[in-house]
Amino acid sequence: MSQPDTLKPTSDATSLGLAPPPKLAFAMVGLPARGKTFIARKIARYLSWLGHSTRVFNVGSYRRAQLGRQHHSFFDPRNEAYVVARRDVALAALDDMLAYLGGNGDIAIYDATNSTRERRALVRTRCFAQGVEVVFVESICNDQTIVETNIRATKARSPDYEGVPEEDAVRDFRLRIAHYESEYEEVGEDEGPFIKVIDVGRKMTLHRIQGYLPARVVHFLLNLHIQPRSVWLTRHGESTFNVLGRIGGDAPLSDAGRACTHDLARIARGRFGSRVQVWTSTLRRTIETAEILGLPFRSWRALDEIDAGACDGMTYAEIAEEMPHEFEARKADKFRYRYPRGESYQDVIQRLEPVIFELEREREPVIVIGHQAVLRALYAYMMDRPPRECPTISIPLHTIVELEPTAYGCDERRIDLAPAPLDPKRFRQNVG
Amino acid sequence: MSQPDTLKPTSDATSLGLAPPPKLAFAMVGLPARGKTFIARKIARYLSWLGHSTRVFNVGSYRRAQLGRQHHSFFDPRNEAYVVARRDVALAALDDMLAYLGGNGDIAIYDATNSTRERRALVRTRCFAQGVEVVFVESICNDQTIVETNIRATKARSPDYEGVPEEDAVRDFRLRIAHYESEYEEVGEDEGPFIKVIDVGRKMTLHRIQGYLPARVVHFLLNLHIQPRSVWLTRHGESTFNVLGRIGGDAPLSDAGRACTHDLARIARGRFGSRVQVWTSTLRRTIETAEILGLPFRSWRALDEIDAGACDGMTYAEIAEEMPHEFEARKADKFRYRYPRGESYQDVIQRLEPVIFELEREREPVIVIGHQAVLRALYAYMMDRPPRECPTISIPLHTIVELEPTAYGCDERRIDLAPAPLDPKRFRQNVG
Repeated sequence: MSQPDTLKPTSDATSLGLAPPPKLAFAMVGLPARGKTFIARKIARYLSWLGHSTRVFNVGSYRRAQLGRQHHSFFDPRNEAYVVARRDVALAALDDMLAYLGGNGDIAIYDATNSTRERRALVRTRCFAQGVEVVFVESICNDQTIVETNIRATKARSPDYEGVPEEDAVRDFRLRIAHYESEYEEVGEDEGPFIKVIDVGRKMTLHRIQGYLPARVVHFLLNLHIQPRSVWLTRHGESTFNVLGRIGGDAPLSDAGRACTHDLARIARGRFGSRVQVWTSTLRRTIETAEILGLPFRSWRALDEIDAGACDGMTYAEIAEEMPHEFEARKADKFRYRYPRGESYQDVIQRLEPVIFELEREREPVIVIGHQAVLRALYAYMMDRPPRECPTISIPLHTIVELEPTAYGCDERRIDLAPAPLDPKRFRQNVG
Repeated sequence: MSQPDTLKPTSDATSLGLAPPPKLAFAMVGLPARGKTFIARKIARYLSWLGHSTRVFNVGSYRRAQLGRQHHSFFDPRNEAYVVARRDVALAALDDMLAYLGGNGDIAIYDATNSTRERRALVRTRCFAQGVEVVFVESICNDQTIVETNIRATKARSPDYEGVPEEDAVRDFRLRIAHYESEYEEVGEDEGPFIKVIDVGRKMTLHRIQGYLPARVVHFLLNLHIQPRSVWLTRHGESTFNVLGRIGGDAPLSDAGRACTHDLARIARGRFGSRVQVWTSTLRRTIETAEILGLPFRSWRALDEIDAGACDGMTYAEIAEEMPHEFEARKADKFRYRYPRGESYQDVIQRLEPVIFELEREREPVIVIGHQAVLRALYAYMMDRPPRECPTISIPLHTIVELEPTAYGCDERRIDLAPAPLDPKRFRQNVG
């Protein structure tokens, strides 16, 4: 290779006879309360959803586990004993990270302040010695409103301040930040590849970002925002194929499916009015569902149900009888199993990437009217569940899965849909 | 919408009842010989391949058409008459661009120096008045070797210097650059969204880049480089399905297919040795071809042939007889025609995007062993042919299509493969 080629796609592409891609570490940089952990977890969630073994190593957790909760003076750089203690903790996390990357791990995110050139040089040297590439991800935030919101939303509630009144916690945390500010040095161009995220993505500076995955991470980060809003995942109303137990196909809604969809429409309108984005697949059952919803919608081919290939239109009983090998292969590994001439869950995740980007980017609430396998994959992303679990995630018909992103995760609530009461006129027609 | 939402995907997503996305202009900024036209054309090629109506408006061409070739003194900002003449030419291009965006155009690239704040303010004001969003794309190049190479490779050969000895042209062009340098002002944060590309992507600064397409363009630009290398597009050797005239399927190579592939192997090894990347689809016929090539290779699902859905494994005669409506629909619009439960050419382009990114990023030569429809789509990208032409691009079996990217385009050469002479031993076995 004419240049280091950072982690080529693993799931989409099978490589035969090629050298394995190098291991990669994203090392966070920034003052406390600059959203480092938010970014670290988002990157980790995205990459592990894409199929890379990814883990975050948070130095704060190591410190709390090894040294307990600490007063702001612990972070004073003039206090030499504490400087050594903090350095030891940071190195313990780094050692664990390198052990992880020396084993099954593909990508690690080193979530620490790394606020001095000296500390970053140490991180780079250790990583390079093990053949691990390093990309610094620096979060700079000059918008004091955002910093303040972050302190109150995450720091004052951190285990460091359990039982401490909020105002005391906030005061102590501000002093902690001041200690770091006194010695903070921005990442320079002589420190290798970096991504600087300024004021939550208002501005971004990239330096020597050329690898496959770092470029994807930049694209991913460009879509992030911190404005709260809901995402609803809901399957189309029951289709006539659901009634028959057939998979795939392009069947219309059943009467029961229509009835429950009227309930969805009522709840959605009550909740959002018309300020909501509605997305469907290109299949009839999701489009009919959106039509009953009565709001403008957008149909994505990427949201189409998993392609059952040669098994399309069959029941599982028929597959077991007519294609027993396929039935067994699917049972043995539902995540990687690919229907003959069709798709696997892994394939579905690959093609859902643009949907994830749009989902992150959208600032209005979104209702995704989808299909079981596709919604499982989206749910796994939102809830940071291992992709391998996708085939067993419960996404029943006639249920709204409401997800609300929080600082470091996502809250979930489920609403069951009830069939609409019969329209008397329609009832008369039916019996008449 | 809570924020302007720049051009949502058009080809993947059908929007029902949604407002059309706003029009978008990328306005180049930079001194002469900083690769503005290279970047402008790359962006235009990429976006029009994705299905957006995109056009470049190059002010240099307007100037030459309206005012003819000019000596460097024409670009001296102290020469007031010329300043007015140049401004008029720039405004004529801008007017045409706005007329284009007021009509069928989705995206325009305004390829001019736009080197002063005043000029950029004028561009923004005119665009905003028409509801067009503006993203400045500034190319800054401090690496004099690159600037020098660019002057010699493109400027000294431009129509401005036809018949002028190279050294005279280079000298005049350097003086032209000096005139622009005297008044050049970098784009500032108060000028709205921008992408700064520094030293051909070594560094990049992004400001307020949040829209769907600007974020994709950033990701695209991160993959670009200017190192010359070849890309070979070649279909798998003839398969047994090709012999029978059947489409789709997953058939092995025929004997003739194997024989020609030995010729491919001989030519490829003679040309590249082992310094070449080999990519295949996940289908048997491309993998068998790569195995005969005898080099490590990478199999992409994104390179699989167009999915013929319900028509998979049929001959066109059978489709005409058994599914006459499908046959007619395909004939009427081969580009947008989607096989029942399968794909259209438009769908194929969408899923090929990651391949295009990797193709741009790769610095070694690449041999893509693919299929007819998929290679047509890649060829359309490389040669900047309208995507609608894809279904009629000739990509025969047993032919190497060699493409060599140049400054503003791509050179093409085709090599026919001959079957390998029969191996006498194998011949004896066959008759024995």
